[in-house]
Amino acid sequence: MFELLKTDTTSKARMGRFRTPHGTVETPVFMPVGTQASVKALDSRELLEMGTQIILGNTYHLHIRPGMEIIRAAGGLHQFMNWTAPILTDSGGFQVFSLAKIRKIKPHGVEFRSHLDGSPLFLGPKEAMEIQCTLGSDIAMVFDECPPHDCTPKAAEEAVERTMRWAAECREQPRAPGQSVFGIVQGGVHGKLRERCAKALVGMGFDGYAIGGVSVGEPEHEMMEAVELTEPFLPADQPRYAMGLGTPAQLVELVARGVDMFDCVLPTRVARNGTAFTSKGTISIKGGAVKADFGPIEEGCSCFACRNFTRAYVRHLLNVNEILGLRLLSVHNSHMYIDLMRQIRRHIAEGTFGEFRKQYAATYVPSQKILDARVKRALKVEDRG
Amino acid sequence: MFELLKTDTTSKARMGRFRTPHGTVETPVFMPVGTQASVKALDSRELLEMGTQIILGNTYHLHIRPGMEIIRAAGGLHQFMNWTAPILTDSGGFQVFSLAKIRKIKPHGVEFRSHLDGSPLFLGPKEAMEIQCTLGSDIAMVFDECPPHDCTPKAAEEAVERTMRWAAECREQPRAPGQSVFGIVQGGVHGKLRERCAKALVGMGFDGYAIGGVSVGEPEHEMMEAVELTEPFLPADQPRYAMGLGTPAQLVELVARGVDMFDCVLPTRVARNGTAFTSKGTISIKGGAVKADFGPIEEGCSCFACRNFTRAYVRHLLNVNEILGLRLLSVHNSHMYIDLMRQIRRHIAEGTFGEFRKQYAATYVPSQKILDARVKRALKVEDRG
Repeated sequence: MFELLKTDTTSKARMGRFRTPHGTVETPVFMPVGTQASVKALDSRELLEMGTQIILGNTYHLHIRPGMEIIRAAGGLHQFMNWTAPILTDSGGFQVFSLAKIRKIKPHGVEFRSHLDGSPLFLGPKEAMEIQCTLGSDIAMVFDECPPHDCTPKAAEEAVERTMRWAAECREQPRAPGQSVFGIVQGGVHGKLRERCAKALVGMGFDGYAIGGVSVGEPEHEMMEAVELTEPFLPADQPRYAMGLGTPAQLVELVARGVDMFDCVLPTRVARNGTAFTSKGTISIKGGAVKADFGPIEEGCSCFACRNFTRAYVRHLLNVNEILGLRLLSVHNSHMYIDLMRQIRRHIAEGTFGEFRKQYAATYVPSQKILDARVKRALKVEDRG
Repeated sequence: MFELLKTDTTSKARMGRFRTPHGTVETPVFMPVGTQASVKALDSRELLEMGTQIILGNTYHLHIRPGMEIIRAAGGLHQFMNWTAPILTDSGGFQVFSLAKIRKIKPHGVEFRSHLDGSPLFLGPKEAMEIQCTLGSDIAMVFDECPPHDCTPKAAEEAVERTMRWAAECREQPRAPGQSVFGIVQGGVHGKLRERCAKALVGMGFDGYAIGGVSVGEPEHEMMEAVELTEPFLPADQPRYAMGLGTPAQLVELVARGVDMFDCVLPTRVARNGTAFTSKGTISIKGGAVKADFGPIEEGCSCFACRNFTRAYVRHLLNVNEILGLRLLSVHNSHMYIDLMRQIRRHIAEGTFGEFRKQYAATYVPSQKILDARVKRALKVEDRG
């Protein structure tokens, strides 16, 4: 299903093509997150217009609302939400991490208390695959255990053991017609664990492999390390997906480390806080600094928001709590991520990715938090040296 | 600027055309409300797509935020919000009613305390016209005093006196190039006051006339009465605008009473409560009744929401607080109002408005509140008889 079209000569960056029942996805690709059958604030026309090829849905959330009875009656998730392009569904494994306070890990899965009304909800390999089969997603993810980044080595090992066992079970469950299933590699920043988990999953034979256990609060260098420790054990002729990452500059670096697929809530989440992504870093569209700035959110951007509206207008809308404000920022930020991938594919195709990567790293100003962590890390490495 | 094209033979319904600096408006027309330079939840593309000809803005709100300094720097309200079609601006007179708790009426205007931060804000004829001149709206409204519907006859008379005096003052203020100014008739349900106010305003000579003092909590029969008491004193060759009204069935009846222009927050406001307007009355898209209803919001509707999405999906979105839910309902409800006016114009043109009106009244089920008020009124009239 995956075709590797080109590999960059200066890095591990790859260009490829992934065939699904709802169309072909060109990689590297960014997948906007539609947890509850809606990419927050956006409609399908806006998503297609900005070049969205594939979106995400979530097993855990969709199982709770609207529930599988309604999805089944609608004829699957595509029909339910009238999205005709591919969908990847997460398995609920990430909620083992994000909803840690309301779940218990058992041998055959995880007992949740619904975040909504506290009612019990059991998700294991069997249940997660059955739900994803009903959803009819193009790509289903195995049900894994995603531990926090600062867990003990023993907990990390146990999570890997369970993840491998559960993956084997997922592998055997019925699928929707043409549905791909991706394995998820856990193991934190423990090279041996990443290797063991990756090799076991590859041995089982999945249609693609995800690097999980990232986007769980780890510092940037651990995120990169997790990918670097995993990638060498993944087959070159299958897609690799880094789950839940990251900032634009991080995405460029992750592509350079051999990752093909990404999803992240940042573009729509920071939009709701009045922040815009640009190729030079984030800027606030909420403050008084842009109140009379009649330029677009980002100079040269071709998104619907930038083609039609000014920073001053978007700032006013956010300021008076008009929904259109966060809609326009969500459009811009999502477009920015999609367009970054488009640029990356072009640069890989033209053999200029190395130059592009260097340029991007030089221009993009990361958040203060990331910068602080980099300094701290550098000092630590220096100390050791 | 106004051209009366046709008058219905079975009622006072009229079809016309109003020329403005930003294009021609065909009447009867519904104007979506964009109080703060945004029609709630919608973008300009969606508005134009559904056939919106003209939208509303509000002097009071826009004066507070973003403020005239920014509007002036942007080059006017059209440029600020990138709306290329006509705009009508309300004068702030309605806020004399709706913000009654935070304002004091003075001889030369009204002293408000900003609803936002309590800072003082004076609006009188001079200020309201100056702001509307800066906004550069196609149609500006005079600054009036809008009293509550249950005020004493003396208060109603005082409001009429002030409204006439202020209108004369507004008449003399500088205008934006090509800007029309409409007078506003007050007088509650007092025939003599309505007549006096209308005659005085017509004597001053405005470009159109609004019927104010409605949409202030009065029962339906008083709303109709206010219009019936005013209309005979308005020139046939100028547009008439009933402010802030009403339900779809009421709009049909108001057209039949000779009204050409309408604005109302109902379509977008009830959307945010999960209610859809249909040609047969309102329905809730929030309840369990539609959870597996895979039909459109309204059968036969050609709006973006009905062409693409189901009741079950919209219900799910509302249920999980996804913004797209209220967006889709806002699209449908606004389209419904715009389309109703399109149908009305066609029926007037084809001489079938009388039949359409009868049919509409027979099919449209009003809200329980309106029905109760009608029964109460009928019993009272019977008692008197």
